[in-house]
Amino acid sequence: MIDCSNLTLLTDLYQLTMMNGYLQCGKADEVATFDLFYRKNGKDFAVAAGLEQAIDYINNLKFEEKDIAYLAGLNLFPTNFFDSLRSFKFTGSIRAVQEGEIIFPQEPILTVTARLFEAQLVETALLNILNHQTLIATKAFRIVSEARGAVAEFGLRRAQGPDAGLYGARAAMIAGCAATSNVLAGKKFEVKVTGTHAHSWVMSFDNELQAFMAYADAYPDSCLLLVDTYDTLKSGVPNAIKVFDYLVAKGHSPVGIRLDSGDLAYLSKQARAMLDAAGHTSVKIYASGDIDEEILRSLYLQGAKIDVWGIGTKLITSYDNPSLGGVYKMSATYANGVESPKMKVSDAIDKITNPGNKTTYRIYDEHGFAAADLIALRSEHFDTSQPLTIFHPIETYKKKTFETYSMRDLMIDVFKDGKQVYFSPSIKEIAEYHTKVKAEFYEENIRITNPHIYKVDLSDGLYELKNRLIHQASQNIKN
Amino acid sequence: MIDCSNLTLLTDLYQLTMMNGYLQCGKADEVATFDLFYRKNGKDFAVAAGLEQAIDYINNLKFEEKDIAYLAGLNLFPTNFFDSLRSFKFTGSIRAVQEGEIIFPQEPILTVTARLFEAQLVETALLNILNHQTLIATKAFRIVSEARGAVAEFGLRRAQGPDAGLYGARAAMIAGCAATSNVLAGKKFEVKVTGTHAHSWVMSFDNELQAFMAYADAYPDSCLLLVDTYDTLKSGVPNAIKVFDYLVAKGHSPVGIRLDSGDLAYLSKQARAMLDAAGHTSVKIYASGDIDEEILRSLYLQGAKIDVWGIGTKLITSYDNPSLGGVYKMSATYANGVESPKMKVSDAIDKITNPGNKTTYRIYDEHGFAAADLIALRSEHFDTSQPLTIFHPIETYKKKTFETYSMRDLMIDVFKDGKQVYFSPSIKEIAEYHTKVKAEFYEENIRITNPHIYKVDLSDGLYELKNRLIHQASQNIKN
Repeated sequence: MIDCSNLTLLTDLYQLTMMNGYLQCGKADEVATFDLFYRKNGKDFAVAAGLEQAIDYINNLKFEEKDIAYLAGLNLFPTNFFDSLRSFKFTGSIRAVQEGEIIFPQEPILTVTARLFEAQLVETALLNILNHQTLIATKAFRIVSEARGAVAEFGLRRAQGPDAGLYGARAAMIAGCAATSNVLAGKKFEVKVTGTHAHSWVMSFDNELQAFMAYADAYPDSCLLLVDTYDTLKSGVPNAIKVFDYLVAKGHSPVGIRLDSGDLAYLSKQARAMLDAAGHTSVKIYASGDIDEEILRSLYLQGAKIDVWGIGTKLITSYDNPSLGGVYKMSATYANGVESPKMKVSDAIDKITNPGNKTTYRIYDEHGFAAADLIALRSEHFDTSQPLTIFHPIETYKKKTFETYSMRDLMIDVFKDGKQVYFSPSIKEIAEYHTKVKAEFYEENIRITNPHIYKVDLSDGLYELKNRLIHQASQNIKN
Repeated sequence: MIDCSNLTLLTDLYQLTMMNGYLQCGKADEVATFDLFYRKNGKDFAVAAGLEQAIDYINNLKFEEKDIAYLAGLNLFPTNFFDSLRSFKFTGSIRAVQEGEIIFPQEPILTVTARLFEAQLVETALLNILNHQTLIATKAFRIVSEARGAVAEFGLRRAQGPDAGLYGARAAMIAGCAATSNVLAGKKFEVKVTGTHAHSWVMSFDNELQAFMAYADAYPDSCLLLVDTYDTLKSGVPNAIKVFDYLVAKGHSPVGIRLDSGDLAYLSKQARAMLDAAGHTSVKIYASGDIDEEILRSLYLQGAKIDVWGIGTKLITSYDNPSLGGVYKMSATYANGVESPKMKVSDAIDKITNPGNKTTYRIYDEHGFAAADLIALRSEHFDTSQPLTIFHPIETYKKKTFETYSMRDLMIDVFKDGKQVYFSPSIKEIAEYHTKVKAEFYEENIRITNPHIYKVDLSDGLYELKNRLIHQASQNIKN
């Protein structure tokens, strides 16, 4: 719906008031590093998504004259600010984890190192884009993990606006959905689209059998019939069987029936028995209607006979946790080439940020499985020929030493001094990458209920820096 | 982010498979009426929003050649379908309730009467747009109803994508928010924007006092300082008082302080006392940070001294109820000028739809207050000089008779035979309309916890039609 690709004004007003403030007090060109990360996500880990749109956003940044005219009308800013906006261009550097990566709280998803004037502007839109897609990819991960059959994303009508439907479908495909009902997503991201007919199709005919027959004639080789418009077992399934008999007699293979309401466990078992008794053992049962990972479990426990899932509202809104809560915090400034690490202090220990220019290493054990993540300063070096001891960042007596291991830097360069150096793969490739990353984990660490805690520790250098700054801060407040 | 105003492909694939199906079996030109409504919304009533974007969507419908090329590549459709898409144009009629209207479950928010070929296509996007904005306007209503001071919408960074931020801000302004942090929303909808500085501003300076001073110098007449970067009461408020003293000495009026973390009740009372003791009694206290209507109540009960509220995540995602669940159901078809009312049957009585071409009348009592809504057939006529008896649609012994009353049709014509006949007012005008509508209700009916039940009844004609169709349907299934 937003009618142009230029989202420069999609920001909070305070970014602009700060930018002008920096300009007026001579700090606009000071360089700073900001980390984008989340503190918790209900269920701990997340699936990173949205980087491609974040890159597009950065590439399209430009204040148009009509934007400047609008800002001038607010009577908040002096003229020299508008001159700086006219020549605005992103000249900074961005690192990020790849889309499809499995990530944990506190780990930078993306870092921006840029002039304060630039780094401040981009905060809001980067958070918006990455918070949203990471949220939906994570919910899709949970649902796909629990489903034994294919999952199709059906949520467009219930999404929070057109973008939420489109980019939510994108995120869902990254995390393992097999298809989407969203035609625009299919076209834009080259992913599989799926869908057959609604209750209205059936209601527009004089009776259900006529409606099914007309559908079968139009789509003899992809005939999937929605059977719950009037009465699933007394009308829908018997009529579907008549139509499937007709199709089989003509040499076609009917695809299936779809249940969209009622007791899915009971109805699917009854429908399966009726279809099988009629010889339609290869016909599949599809189900939709307010399903999420908890309902999936419950249905499996009841022996539901459902082959394919259509998941709408609960997936596209991440219904039980509709916001990721990612933040964007300053971690360093640079004056005359010297880094000053920065930290946000808080009474709550988990709200104290990690200072300095950082990255995250994933440590793989001797079996090649992900065993821990280590958030470290980029200035630190690690020699994997030597043992590595990591420790819990709060309960420091909890330690683990790796003898045979490897490490992977989870972050890649995306922009270097304003130049884009990373180009997004296709959704298909991202989904494959996600599958590969998922297979690197022990199942216990990424199961959806009470996963075994995956260690995310701080490097020696980062731990020491953080403690030094905490003590400094408490000194400053006492004085 | 969606990079054009043409959202024609923003639909579910099954709309296209049905459209083609209708075309192949000769029903594409049959006219039908569909109602868009919601069945429940957690808290019953809702504030309608999104009609302006729904109108834009309809006006921009057009299948481009690249869209058709994409659809052809799916190998689902015959060539004559693409010819019909090439000449596609919305030629139907749309009625809707105005934005800002307070509405109840089962009441049509919007009805489409159009060729099946057209009415089917538009289902998904209309639901997406109206579900989203109505959801957020309703959540904003709840928060604004509970807040004693002004509420600013701060949620862009946590919204489900760019559109959710932009149109969520729009919906929030309709339902009574005083301002938004979202600059693009400010520009596009001509609404008030607000915002000052973040923690990063403070962290970019050597110390908090320097940061506050620099901000005060840049904005001496709109100085609002965020005081919780290091320690609210030991550092933030004392430093703010120094800066306010400095501003007052120079003849300026400082605006306020903002609290964004910690115990807002305790901190606001302490901060108020400190400000007052320093003579800054007119300085306001702003608060933000995970606030919703329940937190507001709790803070007021604790005597929190907060004047202005910044509400983000909980508002922009409607966190406790992140989807409206609106549906789009066929209510009539027309063959040779004769209306055939249609109804979706279900075992659950509240899921049985209301048949026929309908509207909703609001009945005002002798004091001019809204006393009940009556969903009625458009073919029915009411004479307000005669008494009107309404009855509960399920517990029919519950009756009420109005002697002196007036009625208002809640729905207006938006498109007539493809021609737009209603043009949206400005957001300011819509917000004023909402305020007027809100004042027509007895407070008990629209309070946010356990509101006194507002009667939404069916007219005699609709009740009889519905019962007749229910009996017919059960006959059909028995046979």
